[in-house]
Amino acid sequence: MNRILGFLGPQGTFSHEAAQSYIDSRVKNEPMNKAYLLKDFYTIREVLLGLKNNEIDEAIVPIENSLEGAVNVTLDILAEEDGLYIVDEHIIPINLNLVAKEGTLPKDIKVIISHPQPLGQCRNYLNDTFQAIVQLEESSTSKAAQRVAAGDGTYAAVASSIAAKMYGLQILNSNIQDAKNNYTRFVVLSKAMKNKTGRDKTSIVFSTENRPGSLYKILDIFSLWDINMTRIESRPAKNVLGQYIFFIDIDGHINEQDVSDALTMVRRKTSFYRFIGSYPTFDCPYDV
Amino acid sequence: MNRILGFLGPQGTFSHEAAQSYIDSRVKNEPMNKAYLLKDFYTIREVLLGLKNNEIDEAIVPIENSLEGAVNVTLDILAEEDGLYIVDEHIIPINLNLVAKEGTLPKDIKVIISHPQPLGQCRNYLNDTFQAIVQLEESSTSKAAQRVAAGDGTYAAVASSIAAKMYGLQILNSNIQDAKNNYTRFVVLSKAMKNKTGRDKTSIVFSTENRPGSLYKILDIFSLWDINMTRIESRPAKNVLGQYIFFIDIDGHINEQDVSDALTMVRRKTSFYRFIGSYPTFDCPYDV
Repeated sequence: MNRILGFLGPQGTFSHEAAQSYIDSRVKNEPMNKAYLLKDFYTIREVLLGLKNNEIDEAIVPIENSLEGAVNVTLDILAEEDGLYIVDEHIIPINLNLVAKEGTLPKDIKVIISHPQPLGQCRNYLNDTFQAIVQLEESSTSKAAQRVAAGDGTYAAVASSIAAKMYGLQILNSNIQDAKNNYTRFVVLSKAMKNKTGRDKTSIVFSTENRPGSLYKILDIFSLWDINMTRIESRPAKNVLGQYIFFIDIDGHINEQDVSDALTMVRRKTSFYRFIGSYPTFDCPYDV
Repeated sequence: MNRILGFLGPQGTFSHEAAQSYIDSRVKNEPMNKAYLLKDFYTIREVLLGLKNNEIDEAIVPIENSLEGAVNVTLDILAEEDGLYIVDEHIIPINLNLVAKEGTLPKDIKVIISHPQPLGQCRNYLNDTFQAIVQLEESSTSKAAQRVAAGDGTYAAVASSIAAKMYGLQILNSNIQDAKNNYTRFVVLSKAMKNKTGRDKTSIVFSTENRPGSLYKILDIFSLWDINMTRIESRPAKNVLGQYIFFIDIDGHINEQDVSDALTMVRRKTSFYRFIGSYPTFDCPYDV
């Protein structure tokens, strides 16, 4: 039976590009006798609920962009939902384009539409180039391109070149992101944990007691066990302003003794703790 | 001469409410012989550039919400711009309402408009109640309410009750935010630093060398000096994926010897460092 990989649709989104790129890299690295099928969902939450409800075997969702930072909705669901594990990560370059209907001139544009993440990624460009223009949020870059195609020539979208091609739009300006190094890291989730590969990292989420130095004490545990922390991200605990949950990535696999021992101690010293997965560190073909 | 306080407009936004509430609390706590005038700007960036260019004396901007987390654009500008100091903080409760034209029924609604922050703050409510509805981003909740008032009765906005009143809209549902404790923390900025009050906190931003344990070593400094860290927030460094800058709040004023000594050491041990201000901790009248 084929494996089904869910992603944030519709066709033509950067998530679609990432899903295809991930499948290509897996087929290349480990020839499989199972083919992958793709299934698109309307929101990131639906992708992950689809995995929980066994509609799909794996889910690929964005977790972090090099310009705009964490994808909050993904982090929040990972903190809420039990039994979903990160089994892989995948990084793709994001090239943003300003696209419009054939014949639209920059001076005609009154409204710019996109997903909030890409709007944030070219915030300076948009503010400098189109000062008093309305920015509209859509659920995906692809939907934004679709709306521009159906519009009256005063709309433009920030979208992928694939989406421009799909909806017959012209690219007015390419690579409009504020910094050149625009990459998005995706994580692949499954209901089964991933075995050790020898080049792994581990993700956890926890909250500490609201006492002075409580986060420091947790980081102290990693220091004691000589475990390298590669990332820390905080999100509001959502009950009280000024209380946070922390997402931490460390080097190593949960099945390694040091990692296992350190995480046992972290679990005991935190008021909330969840293991989100051990998975191979992405072997990046580009210079991120 | 009157002092001018800049905020994210237009009239009727939560930022407007915060600006008015801040002025009221200042007048109450320390009777002033100068009156405050309010000036609205189109974006958070413009508010802060207005302060930089001496168009206003102080700026009030949102920095953190108890549900949706950090306000990224505010943090990014604080990291970029030199010579702007936080001189105060102010917290207000955020009550979100679903508002529409008189006579609109929930089943008529096809599009929901708001600023991305409030859309995120009631994400679960919107996803559960209006599954396949388009969400549009506007530059403010007030602008969103204005568009709904001008619309054809298939639009609704997530907005303040003030905005609903301003644009003659009915409130279909109130307090629709996903968690009851919805508060936004604002910071007040000035070009002059604030004197010690005895109940202060200090904000800094820095990046560390990309070496194992480098963040831990910085937190170690605060631990050595017995300084309590109340908040840590990371943002992407924007040059390389996986590199971050950190915003940290600690108890105490830069003019206290311990704080000053610790920050001198932090400055020496970081590749980028900026002091953002020492200011009185908000004396909260509500149970946040």
